[in-house]
Amino acid sequence: MDFLVIGGDAAGMSAASRAKRNKPDLNVTVLERSTDVSYSACGMPYNIADPAREIDDLVVRHAKVFRENQNINVLTGHCAETIDPADRTVSGVSSEGKAFKLPYDKLLIATGASPIIPDIPGTDLPGVMALKFLEDGRKIKGFLNHVKKVVIIGMGYIALEMCEALRSRNIDVDMVKPRPVFLPWMEQNMAQVVREEIQSHGVRLYPGHSVERIEKSAGGLKVVCPELTLEGDMVLLAIGVTPNSALAAEAGLKTGVKKAIATDNRLCTSDKNIFAAGDCADALHLVTGQKTWIPLALRANRAGWAVADNVCGRDVQLQGIVGTAVFKVFDFEVARAGLNAEEAAAAGFEPAEVMIRTSSRAHAHPGASKIWVYMTGDKKSGRLLGVQMVGREGAAHRINAPAVALHSEMTVEQFAQSDLAYAPPFGPVWDPLLTAANQLLKKM
Amino acid sequence: MDFLVIGGDAAGMSAASRAKRNKPDLNVTVLERSTDVSYSACGMPYNIADPAREIDDLVVRHAKVFRENQNINVLTGHCAETIDPADRTVSGVSSEGKAFKLPYDKLLIATGASPIIPDIPGTDLPGVMALKFLEDGRKIKGFLNHVKKVVIIGMGYIALEMCEALRSRNIDVDMVKPRPVFLPWMEQNMAQVVREEIQSHGVRLYPGHSVERIEKSAGGLKVVCPELTLEGDMVLLAIGVTPNSALAAEAGLKTGVKKAIATDNRLCTSDKNIFAAGDCADALHLVTGQKTWIPLALRANRAGWAVADNVCGRDVQLQGIVGTAVFKVFDFEVARAGLNAEEAAAAGFEPAEVMIRTSSRAHAHPGASKIWVYMTGDKKSGRLLGVQMVGREGAAHRINAPAVALHSEMTVEQFAQSDLAYAPPFGPVWDPLLTAANQLLKKM
Repeated sequence: MDFLVIGGDAAGMSAASRAKRNKPDLNVTVLERSTDVSYSACGMPYNIADPAREIDDLVVRHAKVFRENQNINVLTGHCAETIDPADRTVSGVSSEGKAFKLPYDKLLIATGASPIIPDIPGTDLPGVMALKFLEDGRKIKGFLNHVKKVVIIGMGYIALEMCEALRSRNIDVDMVKPRPVFLPWMEQNMAQVVREEIQSHGVRLYPGHSVERIEKSAGGLKVVCPELTLEGDMVLLAIGVTPNSALAAEAGLKTGVKKAIATDNRLCTSDKNIFAAGDCADALHLVTGQKTWIPLALRANRAGWAVADNVCGRDVQLQGIVGTAVFKVFDFEVARAGLNAEEAAAAGFEPAEVMIRTSSRAHAHPGASKIWVYMTGDKKSGRLLGVQMVGREGAAHRINAPAVALHSEMTVEQFAQSDLAYAPPFGPVWDPLLTAANQLLKKM
Repeated sequence: MDFLVIGGDAAGMSAASRAKRNKPDLNVTVLERSTDVSYSACGMPYNIADPAREIDDLVVRHAKVFRENQNINVLTGHCAETIDPADRTVSGVSSEGKAFKLPYDKLLIATGASPIIPDIPGTDLPGVMALKFLEDGRKIKGFLNHVKKVVIIGMGYIALEMCEALRSRNIDVDMVKPRPVFLPWMEQNMAQVVREEIQSHGVRLYPGHSVERIEKSAGGLKVVCPELTLEGDMVLLAIGVTPNSALAAEAGLKTGVKKAIATDNRLCTSDKNIFAAGDCADALHLVTGQKTWIPLALRANRAGWAVADNVCGRDVQLQGIVGTAVFKVFDFEVARAGLNAEEAAAAGFEPAEVMIRTSSRAHAHPGASKIWVYMTGDKKSGRLLGVQMVGREGAAHRINAPAVALHSEMTVEQFAQSDLAYAPPFGPVWDPLLTAANQLLKKM
């Protein structure tokens, strides 16, 4: 049986490896348009921060290893251009210009997502970069040796991680984006805490400015907005990503929310021989009960495994996601799971919400810092709907407790009764999550 | 209505404060035999570690504040000696030798636990100490100024926290206990990691030696075992604690597991007008479904609140505990929730278990250290039964995720599908908990 995979990163290589482990006699072929497979894309900002590290440190396993040790036919430099679901073939062209056409019994589309390039003049100028593929990381890292100042367009996760990476190399950073609200999904007092942390590292933030064009200037590049012009040696485009679903759509497969490829809980698309996984595919949000598109690494890996199992005849169904995410920005940990009140209302809930500030360690314990918790629940059902946390310590891993509670559809009252860990170095007796839950209960 | 509370620490003062907030016209009296109320007992080792800090930093609120600001009649130096449930009175004697007899409509017994003093000669010698009350902390802290070496009898949480505190003051530490197994509840490869960490800080561990007596030596004290004699300027008794339930038992109240006072899920004892909460009372273990006695601070505070609500006519029922605990020992975080395989088998489960070692951060992320996870589940029902974690980072707060899963009676398979947080500074893409769950599934 031929199992063909389009895309050689998290979802694709997870699926290929596991399928081959499940069934060693399966013919597994992976088409990857770039030269790199199986690398830690999320690690790029941290690698870029350190000039002493090679970008190739991020490669978890090289194509050669997959070929030689696992007998997986990894074809790098192979760009898939057409899927023919009736004929069960994929056609395309290699980087050497050679056309190919490969048959499949089962196909996985794991084409990932691409950075959104804003439709403005100047995005093709030298020094205007986006970060998605390992090759982007290579280019940026090479370029940075001569850079004193970068303008980042966008203020999401990747923009903020890159901002930190650049500051750690003592490169000046300006950040600009059209929407006036900083981290709009976050409770705004908490967003302000993050904003102040970033500014305290000398970064200038300009939300509320639409970029009209990027142009060459005497010393480098100019980012021009109606009421603001920012100059730098490099411009980083980080306004978000979009699923690479055109190939699937052209083959007649159903797409859905934000144009992601529509899948069922077995990761099957609208064609029963074609699966989709990773940043190109949608997922079920367990809190809203609706499809969503949140491209993150754990889901990609997990979905890759599930596809492999389903291709090999095991019946694996994924429950879905709850929107758990975490990032680090300078000395702060920022985490979320589930919905905020606005998202909850849009999903038909009647949300109550609360934001508390407490201490990261016990009363009188040295080294404590502040920790902020936002929590929302449904007044009708009592159900916990979402949590956000910000703090210098204790926010990142703590978010996993409400994430599990969201999976279990716990009420706020049940969650408030959780037997959470306590010792003075790690938190107050009443964990910040419990204090938030207790406060939220009063509003429900 | 008269609400009388015996014991002025976590459970007692939580109950008194909340009852007064619930019903300002309630007469609330607290009998506390020592001079201190409402202090962070768990913080004592950390306070003792720092000669510059006052032990009274640990007092969260002074008796005076409860009296003047909250109108709670806090009687320090008042030792309750008899409860008469028929007459609804409590009798005792004050530190000035004055007898008292107080009536109650509702009574809370929150007498806590006391360190077990081994039945050997010499425990009353000067320099032989135990740590439970703030007064103990005061005495130890005063004494330590002249101490170069301490022998700790016991190797549990408090013994290990005190060991760290003493080493941070550059005091030599020997530790001795009768049972040959170090941290017997812990997976033994993980216990070995903790043991090596402690030894790497110059502490000598002597498990498997029963202490026969403590006696004076030329320079200080001698701890004498059949095949070992240890010398020090001070001896710390830390072999465990026992519930202070004699007062309740003498009044005819039912006691149960480990002589803790038996309570229902409303914290009511076998007498409907008497509640018990905190380290003197039992609790329901949600994994075994059986009563247990695990004296920890969060439960004490939560139970105190529940008693206050029930006294004031709200009907509050506590679900129970799952045995979550965490402690820090030098640079390591040690955490657990639920059962180990031995405990699971004893509770009628058919446990499968697994221990994994992975990285605390993502592939190639700088600063990563090792993290160990033990997990056990029931082969019959598929249910998650318990987790243990050890690591230099990421163990303490991560334990809350399985704690919540245990509350929800999740299966290992459901837990393995949890949408846990990922970013390179905080863990691998597959969280250590998920890797453990995936491995455990193969054995179930």
